[in-house]
Amino acid sequence: MSEKIAVLGAGSWGATLGGLLADNGHSVMLWEFDQQAATTLRQTRTLQVLPDLQLSAGIDVTSDIAAAVRGRSMVICATPSQFMRSTLATLKNQGGIESGTSIVSVTKGLEDKTLKRMSDIISEELGASADRIAVLSGPSHAEEVCRRMPTAIVAASSSTELAQRVQHLFTREYFRVYTHNDMLGVELGGTLKNIFAIACGISDGLGLGDNSKAAILTRGLNEMARLGVKMGGQLLTFFGLAGVGDLIVTCMSKHSRNRSFGEKIGRGASPRQALTEMTMVTEGYKTAPAAYALAQRLKIECPLMEEIYQVLYNDKNPRQSLRDLMDRDTPSEWRELNTLPKEESGE
Amino acid sequence: MSEKIAVLGAGSWGATLGGLLADNGHSVMLWEFDQQAATTLRQTRTLQVLPDLQLSAGIDVTSDIAAAVRGRSMVICATPSQFMRSTLATLKNQGGIESGTSIVSVTKGLEDKTLKRMSDIISEELGASADRIAVLSGPSHAEEVCRRMPTAIVAASSSTELAQRVQHLFTREYFRVYTHNDMLGVELGGTLKNIFAIACGISDGLGLGDNSKAAILTRGLNEMARLGVKMGGQLLTFFGLAGVGDLIVTCMSKHSRNRSFGEKIGRGASPRQALTEMTMVTEGYKTAPAAYALAQRLKIECPLMEEIYQVLYNDKNPRQSLRDLMDRDTPSEWRELNTLPKEESGE
Repeated sequence: MSEKIAVLGAGSWGATLGGLLADNGHSVMLWEFDQQAATTLRQTRTLQVLPDLQLSAGIDVTSDIAAAVRGRSMVICATPSQFMRSTLATLKNQGGIESGTSIVSVTKGLEDKTLKRMSDIISEELGASADRIAVLSGPSHAEEVCRRMPTAIVAASSSTELAQRVQHLFTREYFRVYTHNDMLGVELGGTLKNIFAIACGISDGLGLGDNSKAAILTRGLNEMARLGVKMGGQLLTFFGLAGVGDLIVTCMSKHSRNRSFGEKIGRGASPRQALTEMTMVTEGYKTAPAAYALAQRLKIECPLMEEIYQVLYNDKNPRQSLRDLMDRDTPSEWRELNTLPKEESGE
Repeated sequence: MSEKIAVLGAGSWGATLGGLLADNGHSVMLWEFDQQAATTLRQTRTLQVLPDLQLSAGIDVTSDIAAAVRGRSMVICATPSQFMRSTLATLKNQGGIESGTSIVSVTKGLEDKTLKRMSDIISEELGASADRIAVLSGPSHAEEVCRRMPTAIVAASSSTELAQRVQHLFTREYFRVYTHNDMLGVELGGTLKNIFAIACGISDGLGLGDNSKAAILTRGLNEMARLGVKMGGQLLTFFGLAGVGDLIVTCMSKHSRNRSFGEKIGRGASPRQALTEMTMVTEGYKTAPAAYALAQRLKIECPLMEEIYQVLYNDKNPRQSLRDLMDRDTPSEWRELNTLPKEESGE
């Protein structure tokens, strides 16, 4: 069944998903903040940063946010995380969304300072109840989705009905969507992974090998899962597409900003130098201190997060961090979590 | 405390670990099957395939297996999996090992036809009880361990005391060993990963991207965990160093034989052609039909394993397999396992 859908944010991910929805036969209105950019996009049907994107005629573009959402049964939020609240506040001031409209966040990251998840902001600004909010997340470079490279992702919502509806809307022969009921865990996975992507970058910058990178990924996943479960996420979420899957793609990709940022530090740049060389936001840099503080408050031992924090904010030498990580008493592989009785860890 | 240790098998991994143990102050006797190769290794202190290896004077080399294990408190089994039983049978015929000697398998893979694990073979051939057997496994290219690149690995045994002893023997500033109590799961992880390394190679050969590779890794991990738990392994083992850690390093490495084998198939070679081009054993090729048969017998749905089996043994076109995988009904992300109640998945 064809739906009328608004996509807020015409960056590479928003435009790519808008294009995919239009190709699936839905009527798509893409909202771009900048009026001039909206006009250009409507005319050229592509983005400079994403030459493989070719928007079909079924997509319209506007810079009028109230017009964008009018009469739409679903709104996709794809603005950068730091603009999510201001964008939705603007929308609210112009009348908000119609009751019954569902909202899907496709943005990763937490709000600065408040550390709120995107779904929290949606709920607060638009007054939407939990069963009207979903999240789409997983290992998915926009560049590759544009080129129709096979991709798998999860649609998470506390409402099974909404998760399945989102799954149905987005599924395409090259885009496979699994349903999920742990929205909180899915959002945490998409955020915490950036911290460990910085660590993988540092490892690359130091000239370390595949063994070290696999160790960082695996021990990072261990910390992510233990912290995430304590924060209310489900264990298995972190071992799925929105957890380890997204972690892998971010840590391995040459294109990841967080990994590149870490690589500069590994090569000897100070975090401040490295930051000034980045043209776009490095999410992990902001997430690291927040996650570390949270781990301390919740009494979850996270040595990798701690060392990343020390390197990024206290000018600790990465080689010294590495030595300290290797030097610690080595426990059994799973601490808090390995109290899980064997019989209950099965089916 | 210094121990007297025998290492059976002077391939790159056995020689590397022997060298590490000698550097840790232990008296090491390295057994090499071929008499001439043993003489050369004793003289040159290095292996052609591993130029970075430099064996210290503390290591002796012999081709006499009975002499190798005499008076040793620990025996490390590092022969290729296909020679494990014949090697230990030879040892048994020459008097076996002294009672009280502990045995550590560092070999990955299952026995052909019987599909037995290396620890099963050790138990059967040497009559060792479970509390005298341990396994060392994880993401660890010998090339990098030789170059003292930071590496993390697990030592698993049903005996906590033995796991801790192995941990202590091998730990070095660049080699971090976690203890583990799930030897079966650790051995399965080191074996099943090769199937998905072939799949990642096929994906590379087809020219697919990072999204696809992350999806294969994550869905492969899902199948590995569901099958492994049904076979008696612990869930978390598959999300640790011997599971996802080893999976990542094998799937990402240019050096992995299994990945290279898959890449040839992705580029258009038939499995038979690809096999003839491989100079060394491709474990995953033998493991794939065994694991698939097991999954069918245990009624664990493993679509990725099934397609890999069809490509390798029934000449199915990899692109058709990919289409069939993307085309299936998409369920929720975790099936059998997501019946795990949320409260019990935590700490």
